[in-house]
Amino acid sequence: MIVVMARGATAEEIKDVEKRITDWGYGVHPIYGAERTVIGAVGVPEADKARYMESLEALSCVEQVIGILRPYKFASREFHPEGTVIDVKGVPVGGKQIALMAGPCTVETYAQTLESAEACYAAGARILRGGAYKPSTSPYSFQGHGEDALKMLRDIADSLGMRVITEVMDPRNVELVCRYADILQIGTRNMQNYDLLREVGQVKTPVMVKRGMWAKIEEWLQAAEYVLLGGNPNVMLCERGIRTFETYTRNTMDISAIPAVKELSHLPIVLDPSQGTGRRSLVEAMTRAGVAAGADGLLIEVHPHPDQALKDGAQSLTTEYFGPMIERLKPLVEVCGRTL
Amino acid sequence: MIVVMARGATAEEIKDVEKRITDWGYGVHPIYGAERTVIGAVGVPEADKARYMESLEALSCVEQVIGILRPYKFASREFHPEGTVIDVKGVPVGGKQIALMAGPCTVETYAQTLESAEACYAAGARILRGGAYKPSTSPYSFQGHGEDALKMLRDIADSLGMRVITEVMDPRNVELVCRYADILQIGTRNMQNYDLLREVGQVKTPVMVKRGMWAKIEEWLQAAEYVLLGGNPNVMLCERGIRTFETYTRNTMDISAIPAVKELSHLPIVLDPSQGTGRRSLVEAMTRAGVAAGADGLLIEVHPHPDQALKDGAQSLTTEYFGPMIERLKPLVEVCGRTL
Amino acid sequence: MIVVMARGATAEEIKDVEKRITDWGYGVHPIYGAERTVIGAVGVPEADKARYMESLEALSCVEQVIGILRPYKFASREFHPEGTVIDVKGVPVGGKQIALMAGPCTVETYAQTLESAEACYAAGARILRGGAYKPSTSPYSFQGHGEDALKMLRDIADSLGMRVITEVMDPRNVELVCRYADILQIGTRNMQNYDLLREVGQVKTPVMVKRGMWAKIEEWLQAAEYVLLGGNPNVMLCERGIRTFETYTRNTMDISAIPAVKELSHLPIVLDPSQGTGRRSLVEAMTRAGVAAGADGLLIEVHPHPDQALKDGAQSLTTEYFGPMIERLKPLVEVCGRTL
Amino acid sequence: MIVVMARGATAEEIKDVEKRITDWGYGVHPIYGAERTVIGAVGVPEADKARYMESLEALSCVEQVIGILRPYKFASREFHPEGTVIDVKGVPVGGKQIALMAGPCTVETYAQTLESAEACYAAGARILRGGAYKPSTSPYSFQGHGEDALKMLRDIADSLGMRVITEVMDPRNVELVCRYADILQIGTRNMQNYDLLREVGQVKTPVMVKRGMWAKIEEWLQAAEYVLLGGNPNVMLCERGIRTFETYTRNTMDISAIPAVKELSHLPIVLDPSQGTGRRSLVEAMTRAGVAAGADGLLIEVHPHPDQALKDGAQSLTTEYFGPMIERLKPLVEVCGRTL
Repeated sequence: MIVVMARGATAEEIKDVEKRITDWGYGVHPIYGAERTVIGAVGVPEADKARYMESLEALSCVEQVIGILRPYKFASREFHPEGTVIDVKGVPVGGKQIALMAGPCTVETYAQTLESAEACYAAGARILRGGAYKPSTSPYSFQGHGEDALKMLRDIADSLGMRVITEVMDPRNVELVCRYADILQIGTRNMQNYDLLREVGQVKTPVMVKRGMWAKIEEWLQAAEYVLLGGNPNVMLCERGIRTFETYTRNTMDISAIPAVKELSHLPIVLDPSQGTGRRSLVEAMTRAGVAAGADGLLIEVHPHPDQALKDGAQSLTTEYFGPMIERLKPLVEVCGRTL
Repeated sequence: MIVVMARGATAEEIKDVEKRITDWGYGVHPIYGAERTVIGAVGVPEADKARYMESLEALSCVEQVIGILRPYKFASREFHPEGTVIDVKGVPVGGKQIALMAGPCTVETYAQTLESAEACYAAGARILRGGAYKPSTSPYSFQGHGEDALKMLRDIADSLGMRVITEVMDPRNVELVCRYADILQIGTRNMQNYDLLREVGQVKTPVMVKRGMWAKIEEWLQAAEYVLLGGNPNVMLCERGIRTFETYTRNTMDISAIPAVKELSHLPIVLDPSQGTGRRSLVEAMTRAGVAAGADGLLIEVHPHPDQALKDGAQSLTTEYFGPMIERLKPLVEVCGRTL
Repeated sequence: MIVVMARGATAEEIKDVEKRITDWGYGVHPIYGAERTVIGAVGVPEADKARYMESLEALSCVEQVIGILRPYKFASREFHPEGTVIDVKGVPVGGKQIALMAGPCTVETYAQTLESAEACYAAGARILRGGAYKPSTSPYSFQGHGEDALKMLRDIADSLGMRVITEVMDPRNVELVCRYADILQIGTRNMQNYDLLREVGQVKTPVMVKRGMWAKIEEWLQAAEYVLLGGNPNVMLCERGIRTFETYTRNTMDISAIPAVKELSHLPIVLDPSQGTGRRSLVEAMTRAGVAAGADGLLIEVHPHPDQALKDGAQSLTTEYFGPMIERLKPLVEVCGRTL
Repeated sequence: MIVVMARGATAEEIKDVEKRITDWGYGVHPIYGAERTVIGAVGVPEADKARYMESLEALSCVEQVIGILRPYKFASREFHPEGTVIDVKGVPVGGKQIALMAGPCTVETYAQTLESAEACYAAGARILRGGAYKPSTSPYSFQGHGEDALKMLRDIADSLGMRVITEVMDPRNVELVCRYADILQIGTRNMQNYDLLREVGQVKTPVMVKRGMWAKIEEWLQAAEYVLLGGNPNVMLCERGIRTFETYTRNTMDISAIPAVKELSHLPIVLDPSQGTGRRSLVEAMTRAGVAAGADGLLIEVHPHPDQALKDGAQSLTTEYFGPMIERLKPLVEVCGRTL
């Protein structure tokens, strides 16, 4: 790390900073410029860096402390140069095949979920999505059917030979959700819910960490690091749009996060164009953009009757639309050297 | 609510929307313009509006649905025209007196916390802040001393006659934290952690809901609504900065949120200039700005030796600085018609 | 437009608003709800709406005024359902063929520009980009060679049979730049420089309006409306990234703006992945994403020796990289039903 | 500046970077860490730094280049430790006295401007604001009366003994506007209109540079640097809100920019709470906050009949409200050690 001393820092203050660094056991390399002194600290391990940086930044004689290495280790591509492939009970996420995850936003009824699941399966999806616990901005919105929904999802998925991805919001429910789900989804609002991240780090069920709508890529990878550090190596990421000033779309999808994550990390990255845009009419174009940019998976909301949906109908595709859309996608997948 | 039909919506589609609205039991008032038809729905209660709006937005013949009333009820000033004063075991938050909450970012040791608390008490603070469970972006940063820290906080506060505010992150810890704390703080990262919000809605201990760094004022008030709806009327808000493109400050403090909340809601609003700026040198100016804008309380990080702090030393004031700063603040408080 | 009266607005105030609207010659349709009165105004033409909305919003008895129709006319797809194809002296922008615009960020020397142009031409580009007047955040950065650069661009483009796109920043230079350029580029910083927009509305040379880094899609289309209203029908748009909190990329590319613009407007839309990402390593992935999402053109920085570039070398592709990248792009273009 | 080499950079690449730096005439201080090499370059003057940093960032063997010193010189407090006081024909901006600038958003008629000006003068304002050239998002909005408005402003201001501040948008109008105005306002949309900045750098009339709604403080100070570098030392800044995701207010006022600018620069800083909030009901609270935070001036929209205003009536105070508001402000000004 690089410590930039404040203008006018005294020789004594510079000495004091150097002493702190050597006391921690690291090498000190000062550069005395005309207007500022800069001190390089060599050999500081990842696990201590955040703490030491904060500690030096607190000194009034220090202007800023700059970290050179990435603030995550297990999530970094340097740690694991090959891209990770997660085995979701036989269905891979990562690698050449693009994982197609689809289903209703929320499990409302058995019939609706089954109808959606059948259409998704017919289109090629092998992972069924569906909300049992729903985060809603308004306390007056539908909050999900909980364990009943989990049972339906499991039952329907098993009958079709699909895997289940569903969100877990409460650390107390992790064990319960693990009984029914094949992938645990950490929603955007919970990306920095550390107790939840620690809890899903204790199990072996694969975890999808959705990007916080306010989160820099670096913070998102640190959220993944929480899970990895807990001992669960099966982590995938999901770009679902960030919050900006634009109001035409519900969020602004950061498609450049796909190649960015690919160069920074070995973890698979999935795209959610339904939440990302909030508009049915934009989902197909963004699905195609995501595949072209290198996404490892797609998470898409499909509803047999969006106009009767309890949640997010405006961004759900109809079952009639979804199948042909995937057919139109296949040639694109192929020229990208992937399979579906 | 106002339903804007898409251009080219057919007479049949317009009828269908009108029928849905009347089936829900509400009045229908269509306006047929040259290019668009707009349908007013009258009598839709708050508790159903979010659901019905989503349901109509899902129709492809609908361009947008506009809510006219605020999407919260118990948090609104219309519901409770008088400003709320929360009684924190004899210390008011809300009303004429500005509540001064101060202490270390994190409880590190008994001695450090005591030294900070004594200085804060001497300066006039009657509520002691201090982190026992710390949310940290990096899993390698210090995460807090947990229950040991809670005990120290309680013990020190009692010895000085202070109240305790501290963060609760995990719904499983709400009962535990209630045993030691007088105000439960919901941190910025957990503003939409609904299981946690529901849990603190079940107790009577006052709750401070910090603004999510990505949250619109309307969403923040809906988070408060979760707690109020759960049955806990003792909710205060805290503005602590939002995330923008500016990098000089850690967050961008939205001072205009103070008068905005005052016109929209009856809940007391506290300002956190330490987290809001992330820079010690800006804390005093922002404290003054907050008081001038009408804040009901201040939450300030004070550390006896910021350069030895384990967390956020760069934004902590020294104990030596804090007392005189509060003295300088008093004339300002007075001309604003408040007391400290 | 829809006028939402404030809670507690008196009968007299409601009458007054209704009278204003009928005095302007429009129809009035009030809806009296339990808590709010809402007044629909029918027949307000685009050209007057902005003014009348502002005027009603100024009344203290009015809570908000909601525009139903888009605040632009000539730029809207409703006005011109077919997508526009602009003829740049025989090279189309819009339509089936994707327009490839490439060249150096800035014209530095004749040799550098020629080397870049030849490589771009060989790869299939028929429109040469290059900066003669450069907007630079720092007054100490290189500001461009001005007319000398324009001459070089023209000369090199003519020798290869290419068209020229270059930025014009100063309304006083529009005539001069028109002498050399085939497309006038309005840079991101000048998207709301109305005197410049009016000036380029007076000529017939095609104009590319880059999105302001702070601009909503609706505001961007209003900027295009300024040019169209001036009488120049040859307007194309360019998405080049917006400003968000993310710092890994220079801007956040809003790929969803491509299909969004396609549904709102008939104007062709070009993508600039070089400015959009600010990182050479992300340009290819974003180029592919843009084509998959439906972009009508690509604007890419190519430099023979980026390490010797005076401006933006970090985001420029090398001439060696560019040709093979376009070859890899061709199958993708084809499966999207386009040509290059 | 600090050059961080990419992981795996070869000895040869490191040598090449060192050679470039020494060829420019600067000192080289390499630090060889376990995972990265970092090279400090000492003695690089401000005027060359931007160029050299860009040039090194373009190398694929370089991960990033970090500037240590601020990218502006004449605007920095280091260059000019005392706060600057600008003499606007006898009315100071900067220093102990807070400059009160008020008047209508736009000059509509002589009578309206006079009525507003008289009320502002009576309340203590000595600088009259009023728009002659109005930047409007919509080409259908009122664009200002141009020179006729300038004449009215001058005439009314002279009759009352006031100074005039008004916006100049077009570099061709700088000379014209200088004939009537005492302060040239650069609007938020033109903060990076460099031809305009250069033009107002050629005159001696004081210039107010409003912050771009997308601009970091550092970029804003570089915009001021353009004017200062041109030879005009009379530059003041104006915080008028930045663009964020919040929609309740028109912009988010960054009050922390006031103390931040004070520590970084010697230039006076004015606050515009009318544009900043877009809501009349928030103007007084934000005015008070700005004074408490240390603003050197206030720029406030006052209209005799906001409901008849052609522009921005929703954020204009009435003349009846303005006088008493300033009276209520005076005790606050006094306890802040300022005068009005």
